[in-house]
Amino acid sequence: MESTWSEAHLLGILSKFGPIGSGKGREFLEIGPGDDAAVVVLQENRYSLCVDLIAENVHFDMGYFSPKDVGYKAVAVNISDLAAMGATPLFATVAISAPKVTDIAEIQSGIASACEEYGILTVGGDLSNGTSIVVSISVVGGHFGRSPMLRSRLADGDILFVTGPLGGSAAGLRELKFPDATVQHTPRSERHIHPRARIAEGIFLSELGVVAAMDISDGLAIDLWRMADASKCGFDLDHIPVEAGATIDEAISGGEDFELLFSTSRPEEVEAAFRAKGLDDPIRIGTVKKDPTDRKILGKNALPVGYLH
Amino acid sequence: MESTWSEAHLLGILSKFGPIGSGKGREFLEIGPGDDAAVVVLQENRYSLCVDLIAENVHFDMGYFSPKDVGYKAVAVNISDLAAMGATPLFATVAISAPKVTDIAEIQSGIASACEEYGILTVGGDLSNGTSIVVSISVVGGHFGRSPMLRSRLADGDILFVTGPLGGSAAGLRELKFPDATVQHTPRSERHIHPRARIAEGIFLSELGVVAAMDISDGLAIDLWRMADASKCGFDLDHIPVEAGATIDEAISGGEDFELLFSTSRPEEVEAAFRAKGLDDPIRIGTVKKDPTDRKILGKNALPVGYLH
Repeated sequence: MESTWSEAHLLGILSKFGPIGSGKGREFLEIGPGDDAAVVVLQENRYSLCVDLIAENVHFDMGYFSPKDVGYKAVAVNISDLAAMGATPLFATVAISAPKVTDIAEIQSGIASACEEYGILTVGGDLSNGTSIVVSISVVGGHFGRSPMLRSRLADGDILFVTGPLGGSAAGLRELKFPDATVQHTPRSERHIHPRARIAEGIFLSELGVVAAMDISDGLAIDLWRMADASKCGFDLDHIPVEAGATIDEAISGGEDFELLFSTSRPEEVEAAFRAKGLDDPIRIGTVKKDPTDRKILGKNALPVGYLH
Repeated sequence: MESTWSEAHLLGILSKFGPIGSGKGREFLEIGPGDDAAVVVLQENRYSLCVDLIAENVHFDMGYFSPKDVGYKAVAVNISDLAAMGATPLFATVAISAPKVTDIAEIQSGIASACEEYGILTVGGDLSNGTSIVVSISVVGGHFGRSPMLRSRLADGDILFVTGPLGGSAAGLRELKFPDATVQHTPRSERHIHPRARIAEGIFLSELGVVAAMDISDGLAIDLWRMADASKCGFDLDHIPVEAGATIDEAISGGEDFELLFSTSRPEEVEAAFRAKGLDDPIRIGTVKKDPTDRKILGKNALPVGYLH
């Protein structure tokens, strides 16, 4: 018996939207959604592949997320990983498991909106019944001759930067969870619900030759800790930029800000290039240290604390 | 607070296993699991991209699936899509959402076993808490100069084939659901729990120049119906090969056999080539008809019936 709840249903929604998105991937697409797989024609190049899923009551609460918000966020967290690599977004595949009452078309509309914003093409999908909403997206990005930015490339003496103030998403989550009658909708809650992936900054950093970057998804302290582990080095943070309305703790260990954390031996050059390009000023937060045991935040020994899902 | 339940946990399992698999993808892998994304270096070529998820109580029942079986099946259903395209398996990313009590290492061990069997490399993953088990895998396959096989390429007069008898998985599911004291474990239930993806056959068909294929995942009647829609043609099936122990209905409309359905204008040549290669004999089931309204199964008008998730 034909059901409206199937891969065919999602593919129907997908094909109604085109393949979703009008990004660079379109020039490489040969066969779009609807066959057993999409077919793309790629040139010789480096490509980044990754997957991120978001799950109800873990990454989002339907008390304050609309289905459209869920779709948007599922794309944004993946784009943020491509940004961290310095890759240009190309293709996404979408898998959704959700209760039958879920408005899949609305989730898909959020996915479409984020795909359009970030220039990535949705080329395939799968849909299944499930007990709660899980959206898993996997993405392909292209490096087009640029070197991928890695967690393992911090170098002694480099200056550490973030692409914006931190703690906003954690503060937003706090405001959403414990709503104050006077605080209904804030820039922080907007940061939590509609995270911004720093894709323009990521691509530009890799064009500038920056080789060490990651995105802050679980919190500055734990993510920098991981980066220092991968690079076998230490760090000394002397400045933590705090988003207005957030606490210093939220800036240090709150997750999901999706700002990029990167290092460079040519800080003035990067700052000037960002200014010339009209991007937000990157913010200096400290220095890479040679000794892997030397890890300090504001003068105290650092701990790998963060927000784990 | 560091938790064992996170992307880092899955990445730990992944990296313990290598990147999982020793397939052809390994020669293209530059950066394995552990960074924000894996990096692969690809040559100019066509690539197939797709995703399939399997969800608890929809695609499997933990009453008769072990966590290892779940991991194996999640890979096999994706490999089957690559087989249907004629693509060589290269890379997979894995996203798992599951209750905290789930033995993720066992799911991962089933994934590793299938990756090894089908020669695909797991290059990234994500893991999250969830109310039931959902495993979403997305895969990349390479065509290496061969033409992808499409649903839309059935041509009037072509002979239709399947790569093996049908109905085994549906019969196995029936036997698992209504266990008879005399039937504990059958070749059919094995077909349901450990589906076999016809990857060698798919690649070989595309090498032989076959251009029309799909895998039978929802059932012969509905999948052929979709293929005929995509090709704007009809069909006349005069032979339905039924797996031993299955019913004719299970062969026509049972899902998850994952045999390939394909057509060719050179049937004797394909049969001889399969024999020479030592592959199972493909089975003739009927003929492609020009008129899209002319759709018959064993002399009766066909209906798009199948097993939808």
